[in-house]
Amino acid sequence: MRILVLGGDGYLGWPTAVHLCAAGHEVAVSDNFARRSYDEEMGVDSLVPIATLDERISAWKEVSGKTIKSYVGDLCDAAFTHQMVADFRPQSIVHYAEQRAAPYSMIDQAHAVYTQTNNIVGNLNVMYAIADVDRDIHLVKLGTMGEYGTPNIDIEEGWLEVEHKGRRDRVLYPKRPGSFYHCSKVHDSHNIEFGCRIWGLRATDLNQGVVYGADIEHTKADPRLATRFDYDGVFGTVLNRMVIQAVLGHPLTVYGNGSQTRGLINIIDTVECIRISCENPADRGEFRVFNQMTESLSVRQIAETVAETYPGEATIEHLQNPRVELEDHYYNVKHSALEGLGLKPTLLSTTLIDHLFDVVERHKDRVDVQAIMPTVNWQATTNELPRTAAQLTPMK
Amino acid sequence: MRILVLGGDGYLGWPTAVHLCAAGHEVAVSDNFARRSYDEEMGVDSLVPIATLDERISAWKEVSGKTIKSYVGDLCDAAFTHQMVADFRPQSIVHYAEQRAAPYSMIDQAHAVYTQTNNIVGNLNVMYAIADVDRDIHLVKLGTMGEYGTPNIDIEEGWLEVEHKGRRDRVLYPKRPGSFYHCSKVHDSHNIEFGCRIWGLRATDLNQGVVYGADIEHTKADPRLATRFDYDGVFGTVLNRMVIQAVLGHPLTVYGNGSQTRGLINIIDTVECIRISCENPADRGEFRVFNQMTESLSVRQIAETVAETYPGEATIEHLQNPRVELEDHYYNVKHSALEGLGLKPTLLSTTLIDHLFDVVERHKDRVDVQAIMPTVNWQATTNELPRTAAQLTPMK
Repeated sequence: MRILVLGGDGYLGWPTAVHLCAAGHEVAVSDNFARRSYDEEMGVDSLVPIATLDERISAWKEVSGKTIKSYVGDLCDAAFTHQMVADFRPQSIVHYAEQRAAPYSMIDQAHAVYTQTNNIVGNLNVMYAIADVDRDIHLVKLGTMGEYGTPNIDIEEGWLEVEHKGRRDRVLYPKRPGSFYHCSKVHDSHNIEFGCRIWGLRATDLNQGVVYGADIEHTKADPRLATRFDYDGVFGTVLNRMVIQAVLGHPLTVYGNGSQTRGLINIIDTVECIRISCENPADRGEFRVFNQMTESLSVRQIAETVAETYPGEATIEHLQNPRVELEDHYYNVKHSALEGLGLKPTLLSTTLIDHLFDVVERHKDRVDVQAIMPTVNWQATTNELPRTAAQLTPMK
Repeated sequence: MRILVLGGDGYLGWPTAVHLCAAGHEVAVSDNFARRSYDEEMGVDSLVPIATLDERISAWKEVSGKTIKSYVGDLCDAAFTHQMVADFRPQSIVHYAEQRAAPYSMIDQAHAVYTQTNNIVGNLNVMYAIADVDRDIHLVKLGTMGEYGTPNIDIEEGWLEVEHKGRRDRVLYPKRPGSFYHCSKVHDSHNIEFGCRIWGLRATDLNQGVVYGADIEHTKADPRLATRFDYDGVFGTVLNRMVIQAVLGHPLTVYGNGSQTRGLINIIDTVECIRISCENPADRGEFRVFNQMTESLSVRQIAETVAETYPGEATIEHLQNPRVELEDHYYNVKHSALEGLGLKPTLLSTTLIDHLFDVVERHKDRVDVQAIMPTVNWQATTNELPRTAAQLTPMK
């Protein structure tokens, strides 16, 4: 199968491309390297050193004998997106290519506007490219569990059967997103569901939990195949960050009381979920939603698991929560669709955390301690004059 | 009360500004004249001749002795938006300033992207201006009944009490928007609801039905106070267009079988709804939704009412529906909140239609017959290479 991975230079995009290629698919990637430029903007860097996209592709060719094609460009450029899709003619498009950090979107007005514009316009251009070039192309779109918020009812997989005043309907599951980034994913989902209705698009919307882990089988083969590992307060996700804090001998920081619960997934399962979704496409006109997570843990439970596993001393410290979110809430998520298609979950275990300690230990001299703490507050705005429109263009 | 009307040069913005000013409020308007430039782009024009914003404001001063302040600029310019809000310091902001035609958003990729970018970014900038300058400012935001689609359950006012597997929650009413324009309004609503949670904004989201009518009491006082009257296939709404077809002796065109039902509202009621919303603000942190419509009629019923009222001969013709929508569907909308606050509905009547016939008769030499028919099809895309990113900037 020909599969195009958008955002194929990112934390998950690169391992996904390698995994799909190793599984026998013909793979191309695209990227505009926005993720690398955010590092420059924020003055941070991946814990694990990463090669350039060209070096990665060459290394993979050396290791596997297989070729991954690459397209360098911005999905917000509609002509680039159309030409790429017309040139590669994929059967599936895996769309990771969005700004994906909630704190980044909450920095200020300019970052909120950038996040929503970048994500929505890129996704619309992908939809139009499919509609123009070949409506049989299956769009596999990455969303997030954070779109749902923490409703007081069970979280179903994207759709909800509602009975109201004696009548019934099947509706999009109502969302309560937790940042302007999460909002952008909700917007994408509405646009795609509409595209399925008017153009008969095939779409799989994957609401993914918080991903943890540093590598998959095939990226361990050569250091040039390594993917990025973020631990900073803006792009770092909870478990990866806590592993670094343990290794450095810092307290593991829990925001608020830590009862807030997250859906989690191992990077090994992420790439498998993508393979399974591509190999089992949605029907024409179907807007299919899977909850791409394998277990739920509270932030406090994650901290306790890391602390207990760490061979040295590890303490837990509570910080004031910079986010606006419920800490004590109901959370029961259905996530059986991907398992029904063959996913074998890799649950969080001491073995996995041990491996992460090794990865961090190897690179701990690269840690910038200043970067770990949260700097973005959900309730504050700058109260200053925003930058002008001319300065609002994507900050590549 | 100081009220800022964004989009105050438009079909509804201008009469709203006049109505609020006549009711004793201190009013300012802003506009970037995008609506006038769409006319130039599409080669169409308002049936009723309209004065410039400056001429309108001068005429209103002559007629009433009252002053309306004006700001000329684009809400997508964050600095302009912030400075305007800081300068005028409104208690309420009425936000009409969005691209508001579904067919326009469906012309092609560039128009879909323009519509969503323009609407979402402008609205985000208004939210940030409020958050930065004064979080007590009440945002009165125009949305549309077309956001809901035609669910098989009753349409409530923005929120839905759900019982699911024995548990209950109050959730945003699930939407099924009918165009990329309608999607943009759903996106705005999600962003605003989030703003209410994190910043404690006060917001009233008005899901408005199809507006008909040519004037309100105070815009009849002088021809320079007239508002626009659109009848073309892109910006014209159903009832206004049919009145013109009757006067010209053309068949009244019904898309599809005409069973599709619309919520309607008279322009006289629209301006009253805005006054009522401003004078009864939402609470801090409250995302309040009103369905701003007074009656439901099928497109066929609207055509029949126009045909029966017209003193001459009027026939009805069915065209293939250019939209993708259900024609036979359940439609039961709750719209009691505004009436509960004092709205006295002005329902569609033969008197009202008679007045519209007069308005059209007076200006019928200005009608461009070619412009009436629908030209935009929901299912087609161009299949051509999209314009490049540089050409995608707002087409003012």
